[in-house]
This record gives sequence, C-alpha cells and structure tokens, in this order.
Amino acid sequence: MPHIALPEGLPGMAACLAFRPETAKPLGELAQILMQGPGTLARGERELIATYVSSQNDCYFCQSSHGAIAAACLNDDEELVRKVRQDFQHADISAKLKALLVIAGQVQKGGKHVTAAAVEGARRCGATDLEIHDTVLIAALFCLCNRYVDGLATWQPRDDEMYRQRGKRVAREGYINASRQSLPQQAPA
Amino acid sequence: MPHIALPEGLPGMAACLAFRPETAKPLGELAQILMQGPGTLARGERELIATYVSSQNDCYFCQSSHGAIAAACLNDDEELVRKVRQDFQHADISAKLKALLVIAGQVQKGGKHVTAAAVEGARRCGATDLEIHDTVLIAALFCLCNRYVDGLATWQPRDDEMYRQRGKRVAREGYINASRQSLPQQAPA
Repeated sequence: MPHIALPEGLPGMAACLAFRPETAKPLGELAQILMQGPGTLARGERELIATYVSSQNDCYFCQSSHGAIAAACLNDDEELVRKVRQDFQHADISAKLKALLVIAGQVQKGGKHVTAAAVEGARRCGATDLEIHDTVLIAALFCLCNRYVDGLATWQPRDDEMYRQRGKRVAREGYINASRQSLPQQAPA
Repeated sequence: MPHIALPEGLPGMAACLAFRPETAKPLGELAQILMQGPGTLARGERELIATYVSSQNDCYFCQSSHGAIAAACLNDDEELVRKVRQDFQHADISAKLKALLVIAGQVQKGGKHVTAAAVEGARRCGATDLEIHDTVLIAALFCLCNRYVDGLATWQPRDDEMYRQRGKRVAREGYINASRQSLPQQAPA
C-alpha cells in the first residue's frame, strides 16, 4: 500500500506525477529533453542506460517501464534489454555504450564513484563530452525517479503486457504526450 | 579537474547548468517549485532537508550552498544548520521536521528503505501527505543533484563567504533569477 494517498489505479511514476502536477511538469520536460530530445545517443541507448540504473537500484517499475521503452526503440528486442540489465559487458551493444554504462553504474553508487579512468575509457570509444554529460545526468535522474517511485511505495503491477504497451506509446508519442493520456484504471490486486 | 570541459570559473551546479541549458531549464523550474513554491513547509525547512541529504551523500558543493540558503532563511543561524547536518535529533527544530528528516535519510539510502513506521511517525507529528511527498521528492532531487555535481567532478571552491553570499541571493531572488545572474568568475586554484 502506498505511504500516502496517491490517486488509485495509476502505477508507479504515473501516480507520483498525478499527485503533484506542479512538480510533474518540469520533471516530464526534463525526461523529454534528456531521453528523447536532439542528441547523438540513440533513444534506445539512453533508455538502456535508464533501465540499467533502475535495475541496479532494484526499482521494478522503472526498470520494467524503461526496459519496455528501450525494447520499443530496438526492434522489440526484449532479450537484448534483459542482457544489458544482467550482464551488459557481454551484450550485443557498442563498446561506447558499454563504456557509458560503466559510468552510469558508478553514478548509481554515488557521484564520487565516477573515475577519470572510466571517463577516459568512454572517450577512447568515441564518446563526446555531451554524451558523457548526458549519461551522468540520465543516471542521476533515474536515481531520483527510482527513489520517488519506491520511496512512496507506489503500486507496481507485475503485468508485462501493460509495460510493453506503455513502452510503445512513450516511444511513439513522447513522455509528455503519453502521460497526458489516461492510463489503465485498474484497481490494485 | 572536471571530467568534461565545463565552463571555467563556475562552481558546482552552476557549471553543470551552464554546460547544458536545455536540461538546466526544467531542473531550475523543478527546484524553484519544490524549494520555494507555495507550501506548508517553510523554505528553511525544505533547505535543511536538502542540506542533510547532500551531507549524507558527502557532496561538498550542495551541502555548502543549500546550507547557506537554509541559514539565510533562518535568521543566519549557521550553527543550527551545522547541528542538523551532524545530529538533527538533538537540533532545535520541530518534532515534525525531525520525523521528515528520518524519511529523507531513508530516501538517500534508496527508495525501498523508506518504512511505514517512519511515515506513520511523521504523520503523528502532524505531517500531511503533501509534506511527506515533498520530503521524498526533495531528498530524491538532491540524490540527483549530488550525483550530477560530483559525477562530473565540478570545481567546488572552499570559500564560505562565496556560499554565504550566494545563499542570501537565492533566498532573496529565487533559484531561477539568481542563476541567471553572472556568478563570480574565479579561476580554479
């Protein structure tokens, strides 16, 4: 049961955002720009970073929803998403993305854990300063989101198909448009 | 030395925001609403929550700058800010704020660390759902900020007077207005 009286029938972040629309607006805009705005990291790559950090933080809702958005961006390759979560060093992704995931994992532990060696490693694989910046900020943003969603003990349904459909919608329509639509009004089991 | 080529002469978060104005805008708006927007938690209380979380994350820049904003909101009582950082249970603050700081400390460790008992404790001290929500989101936001500032290895000058002056300015003019002004253009030592 959620720690506070969140709107019923909305899962995870959707409930947090509906509870406090004033803070939801800039949070949605930040996610939109960082995850889907212009940039040289592919959307699927950014979503894999978000998914990996959320899995390191053990946040079921965020790793499921962003894993589903990642898959929607990557030709529905759910197996690749699973592999990145569990053992990204052996996943079929670029050396650059692996190097950025190393940095993201360090950010998840804490800002001071990020090493010059990891940054240098990413740069050797071709990562730009902006890509390194965005990796740090995506990882930091999901350290916020994971704590927000779990810290309020939101409802997080075990329903792969719900996450899959929602992932496709966010990939297609963007964070802000997708969250404007009504969500499945299921009551918690 | 910062991990990426941040604008020179800007400390901590100011450098991060200047590097990427597109993400700075919604981040500034989120901070403005959450830390200084309408609400029943006093601005000084919100800044104490931010300062405490930043000190638990060992982020020198954020605990110094938000500690200074807190002091500016609390009749320049820097000793109270220090006490909250070090041992808030024995600081001269309300029972409600102590209970909210317990929740904030749990969020700092991770969303799943927040206990129903801590939430119930805050409620017994008169905390509303919105105050509990905002405490969780402030703590989560500073888990982002601390990781952003330290994860890029920003310049964080040891200069109490700089933080004091900046704290007064943010308390007086707000986050967004204060960050629009030019910051002290000191070169890193």
